[in-house]
Amino acid sequence: VGPPIFTADRLYDTTPPGVAMGLAWTSMGGAALYIESILENALSSNSHPGLERTGSLKSVMKESASVAYSFSKGLIARDFPKNRFFEHAKIHLHCPEGATPKDGPSAGITMATSLLSLALNRRLDPTIAMTGELTVTGKVLRIGGLREKTVAARRAGAKMVIFPADNLSDWLELPENIKEGIEGKPVSWYHEVFDLVFPNIDREASNKVW
Amino acid sequence: VGPPIFTADRLYDTTPPGVAMGLAWTSMGGAALYIESILENALSSNSHPGLERTGSLKSVMKESASVAYSFSKGLIARDFPKNRFFEHAKIHLHCPEGATPKDGPSAGITMATSLLSLALNRRLDPTIAMTGELTVTGKVLRIGGLREKTVAARRAGAKMVIFPADNLSDWLELPENIKEGIEGKPVSWYHEVFDLVFPNIDREASNKVW
Amino acid sequence: VGPPIFTADRLYDTTPPGVAMGLAWTSMGGAALYIESILENALSSNSHPGLERTGSLKSVMKESASVAYSFSKGLIARDFPKNRFFEHAKIHLHCPEGATPKDGPSAGITMATSLLSLALNRRLDPTIAMTGELTVTGKVLRIGGLREKTVAARRAGAKMVIFPADNLSDWLELPENIKEGIEGKPVSWYHEVFDLVFPNIDREASNKVW
Repeated sequence: VGPPIFTADRLYDTTPPGVAMGLAWTSMGGAALYIESILENALSSNSHPGLERTGSLKSVMKESASVAYSFSKGLIARDFPKNRFFEHAKIHLHCPEGATPKDGPSAGITMATSLLSLALNRRLDPTIAMTGELTVTGKVLRIGGLREKTVAARRAGAKMVIFPADNLSDWLELPENIKEGIEGKPVSWYHEVFDLVFPNIDREASNKVW
Repeated sequence: VGPPIFTADRLYDTTPPGVAMGLAWTSMGGAALYIESILENALSSNSHPGLERTGSLKSVMKESASVAYSFSKGLIARDFPKNRFFEHAKIHLHCPEGATPKDGPSAGITMATSLLSLALNRRLDPTIAMTGELTVTGKVLRIGGLREKTVAARRAGAKMVIFPADNLSDWLELPENIKEGIEGKPVSWYHEVFDLVFPNIDREASNKVW
Repeated sequence: VGPPIFTADRLYDTTPPGVAMGLAWTSMGGAALYIESILENALSSNSHPGLERTGSLKSVMKESASVAYSFSKGLIARDFPKNRFFEHAKIHLHCPEGATPKDGPSAGITMATSLLSLALNRRLDPTIAMTGELTVTGKVLRIGGLREKTVAARRAGAKMVIFPADNLSDWLELPENIKEGIEGKPVSWYHEVFDLVFPNIDREASNKVW
């Protein structure tokens, strides 16, 4: 308690399935914002699904997690129909650091990525950072603070930043020294994020994960 | 984070089933207000129905979604008795942008249209925009800001604006240059909206959707 | 958005079963206050009963709806024992307009009438307006604003106003020009309302409605 302290620019060197690197924009500048999802219980045919959300999330960010959860369930049902993960998974989604209040919708694609990483049991590349509001149909909407977020992404060791195509003009206006070493990837729909974060996915194997 | 920015006048070029274009009236003028509904789970004979609502909706708009949901269930039960969609569908209705607080009853007919589009598995024409309070029996009631909403509809590429017949005098008083290229359709009951947004519906096929 | 506007003095020309015309008394004068009840689901032997209430109802009016619901269930069980409507009906009771906060107990008899109209599948005469607090045993209690309500009833096309017998002195003191063309009907118990709004009811047929 007291003012938020961003000590760890990069929380993870390698990430377990369920962890995705987002980017926050605060009055103190940008910061890496990790989203962590884990299974609360062992999966079984009679375990009940659900989503618990922690990390001092305020109302918009809580709703954003619900949107990401519904979207992710729909994506798996449609694209991986034999993957029954979400039918039985009680999931806990947490955003460190626990004492830092967080709000806003711009972690939407990060939360969906975290949930899908868990559902598909695939680790993410820890050098990919992302920011973007997600709608429940998978559209990716404009965010604020791309400059500060890009600075934070570099500091956290990111080599790729995924951002909304609606922010492309912001990206193009960024000084080259800020973008150096960072590949910018504008996206309009979540399926473009999916292809970047889960390349070469083996759909047969993913169907059988759970 | 910061004031809401309506950058994307038009969010969708083509829309999946479940997405309908409404119109909002804010202190900053009119804006396209999309309503998105998706299925949270694969439908099955033992899936439980329900409606989740997100998008920083305040109490009147939340109730408006409940009214639209009850009305839509009744319409399907009466007119498409073999369509069992609502008996098993867990639906998530979201209104982007997530950080913009929204209130008021005037998205009623848009929410019903979004839900029915999903239930009937029919895409909507993305150039149709609509505004109107809906009562639970299907009556369409007067709204405010038709002028600002019409301006927003044009900016978003709409070619038809559906509005309450109680607002017909407002429509007739609008300058021609604002209405240019827009067909205005006054309605008193939802069934008139239905005939405009779902023309030539194959009732046999719609009965069999789910 | 803006102050509530009561433009439509009369919402319905003919009313479906479940719609009853009440009368509200606000700081701006009287107004027609419709109560609409619909079935949320098709009735079946395993559908679960319930009452959902919307329309920006405050706590006293919400409780008033619960009283009307319990009373109506009791009336049907006693007088129409073979009518199983309330055992399986999931009902949605709504009071347009959705953005206008409403409170007070004086819509009690209107809410009971709306629910019974649905249970008996009988349309009401759209020229009958009513106001009166209802107790759970069927007693009709005094209300306020009979003068303003009578003015509103006329404006909405009513030809009969049902009011509590406790308000008879208020009625008698009203100037003749206000009451012109309106038949005043004082009632002490709900069964008197019933006989006025459901005349010549075929008890055998009503027993078999559901």
